[in-house]
Amino acid sequence: MTDADFMQRAIALAEQGRGWTNPNPLVGCVIVQQGNIVAEGYHARYGDWHAERNAILNCRQDLNGATLYVTLEPCCHHGRTPPCSDLIIESGIKKVVIGSRDPNPLVAGKGAAQLRQAGIEVVEDVLRDECDRLNPIFFHYIQTKRPYVLMKYAMTADGKIATASGESKWITGEAARENVQRTRHQYSAIMVGVGTVLADNPMLNSRIPNGKQPVRIVCDSQLRTPLECQIVQTAHQYRTIIATLNQDLDRHAEYRQFGVEILTVAAQNKRVDLADLLQKIGQLGIDSVLLEGGSQLNFSALRAGVVNRVHCYLAPKLIGGMQAKTPIGGEGIASLAAAVKLGSPQISLHGEDILLDFEVIH
Amino acid sequence: MTDADFMQRAIALAEQGRGWTNPNPLVGCVIVQQGNIVAEGYHARYGDWHAERNAILNCRQDLNGATLYVTLEPCCHHGRTPPCSDLIIESGIKKVVIGSRDPNPLVAGKGAAQLRQAGIEVVEDVLRDECDRLNPIFFHYIQTKRPYVLMKYAMTADGKIATASGESKWITGEAARENVQRTRHQYSAIMVGVGTVLADNPMLNSRIPNGKQPVRIVCDSQLRTPLECQIVQTAHQYRTIIATLNQDLDRHAEYRQFGVEILTVAAQNKRVDLADLLQKIGQLGIDSVLLEGGSQLNFSALRAGVVNRVHCYLAPKLIGGMQAKTPIGGEGIASLAAAVKLGSPQISLHGEDILLDFEVIH
Repeated sequence: MTDADFMQRAIALAEQGRGWTNPNPLVGCVIVQQGNIVAEGYHARYGDWHAERNAILNCRQDLNGATLYVTLEPCCHHGRTPPCSDLIIESGIKKVVIGSRDPNPLVAGKGAAQLRQAGIEVVEDVLRDECDRLNPIFFHYIQTKRPYVLMKYAMTADGKIATASGESKWITGEAARENVQRTRHQYSAIMVGVGTVLADNPMLNSRIPNGKQPVRIVCDSQLRTPLECQIVQTAHQYRTIIATLNQDLDRHAEYRQFGVEILTVAAQNKRVDLADLLQKIGQLGIDSVLLEGGSQLNFSALRAGVVNRVHCYLAPKLIGGMQAKTPIGGEGIASLAAAVKLGSPQISLHGEDILLDFEVIH
Repeated sequence: MTDADFMQRAIALAEQGRGWTNPNPLVGCVIVQQGNIVAEGYHARYGDWHAERNAILNCRQDLNGATLYVTLEPCCHHGRTPPCSDLIIESGIKKVVIGSRDPNPLVAGKGAAQLRQAGIEVVEDVLRDECDRLNPIFFHYIQTKRPYVLMKYAMTADGKIATASGESKWITGEAARENVQRTRHQYSAIMVGVGTVLADNPMLNSRIPNGKQPVRIVCDSQLRTPLECQIVQTAHQYRTIIATLNQDLDRHAEYRQFGVEILTVAAQNKRVDLADLLQKIGQLGIDSVLLEGGSQLNFSALRAGVVNRVHCYLAPKLIGGMQAKTPIGGEGIASLAAAVKLGSPQISLHGEDILLDFEVIH
């Protein structure tokens, strides 16, 4: 087994925390002695022990001279849990192999430096790209304090999200819709526009068994969300935020009595200013938003430059229609030279449907 | 080497005729003696010898007891060339291994039967699916007498073929556009609407070196194609057909003097009836059409049910725009249940762009 093999195992362990660690990163760790893995650990849930601590505490034998593999530079600061670097030093581990560098300004190389000062050999950047891919949300949020935004839409192979007469249930099949449920579980919040609430009266919860429930955010500049809609009626059960330009406190109180949080935000073309909204919800500790907007909200997000990633589900069907809605509407970007550029997609099949998973290139 | 290995080689040979054999099929052939390939052949160009004849004539040694592998059932009728079955029987070949069955009503099992009657062992259906995939155009045309239609469009990842202000050059990059040139070489005709001629004044030729030049077909119900456009001006050089509802013979004469053929066809909603047009150009020997229509013509083709295959080029960029054109416009299909269904796509990358190659499921 090589360093890369052990790191690959650490990556697989890290994956097990997916959906539960936000706003913390996914991290996995293995400890190796004489070529054998003697302990494993991962960060399982926000607030729980870090991966390194779990691995070390999982191990009953003497770790003197052992090598520790970890997908992310160990922390050296007191957060919700004590610093891992101290525990590693105490344990007698002699070598630490690191995947991702920690962009957290509180760590950022200090973790590795502290280990080296204690006489531990430190190797960095082993499978760094693979390790970095575990944590796009964490890396973005820790550096910008704004949530990472995934825009998700489902369209036909001719670019429609509904027929010309407005029928949209369902563009994609069951397997693709189940995958969206898994994505909801991985994001801290789901955002829609009031148009979606008025048209579909959705619940916007995660329906996977024991899934984490994302915070629901409705962009509603004029505060038109009906009090009797499902989202308002279940706001005591599932955290719900309405972002609005409306400043009528009496009106706010009507929503608040159902448990809805009202967030007044700045205006941009008489609509919710998404940059302002994202900054505000970032301050609330929300590190990631799954944007399931209609055409108009998606365009506002595109123009605001706040989208980090795109999940384009493409269904193998054609419907045509000059008036049929497309995933991103609004005024549009006038020139192709100014188009928002996407990276090379990861492509996967979900039933008959194709998922194109793009990163936005800024 | 197994039967499948030899047939795979025959398939690779068949591919070498791509673009040149229409309306004949692509066919490849190898002859094997004592486990070794002793001769190869393929159908190189319409009117030339068939693959079997080329292989047999390529071979100087005695073929007594040899096995012949051919991707398509040998013909047994007199066409432009004499029947291959006679030559195979005369050559002393003792076994024939066949990939595709020939749906041509003039052959359709008679080729294989004739070989068997002459005492030759015949094995059918070896790599039949792979062999069938060589010739979707031939199979369609020989059975229906109507051309096989490939609808090709290039759109952004949010389903737009142009910005809201109409800019469409270029949605995709150079590699994707080069691949379209290769596709043009493989189709007997290119079809566009008059709107494309008015907007872009295109040449619609194949620009690959020594490429076959497809027939250019313009759907122009009211005969609005300008006499000074590139297509009309080069009609003596590249065969050009305008399909119209206009019956004014004096007007027709103006185009004819430039070498343009005028085809009057039936009307469908005051537009060119594509089913009628395709039947008529099928009678002219055109076996395949690459439809590079705009939104409206694409919808007419979709509604007429004449599309066999779709090439959806998807560019990794987003532009938005409620008013931006999409690949298929028109009225659209009203209900999702009535959507045109596509098969599982073959996906390939061309530069940064993604090609989704779908068969239409009828």
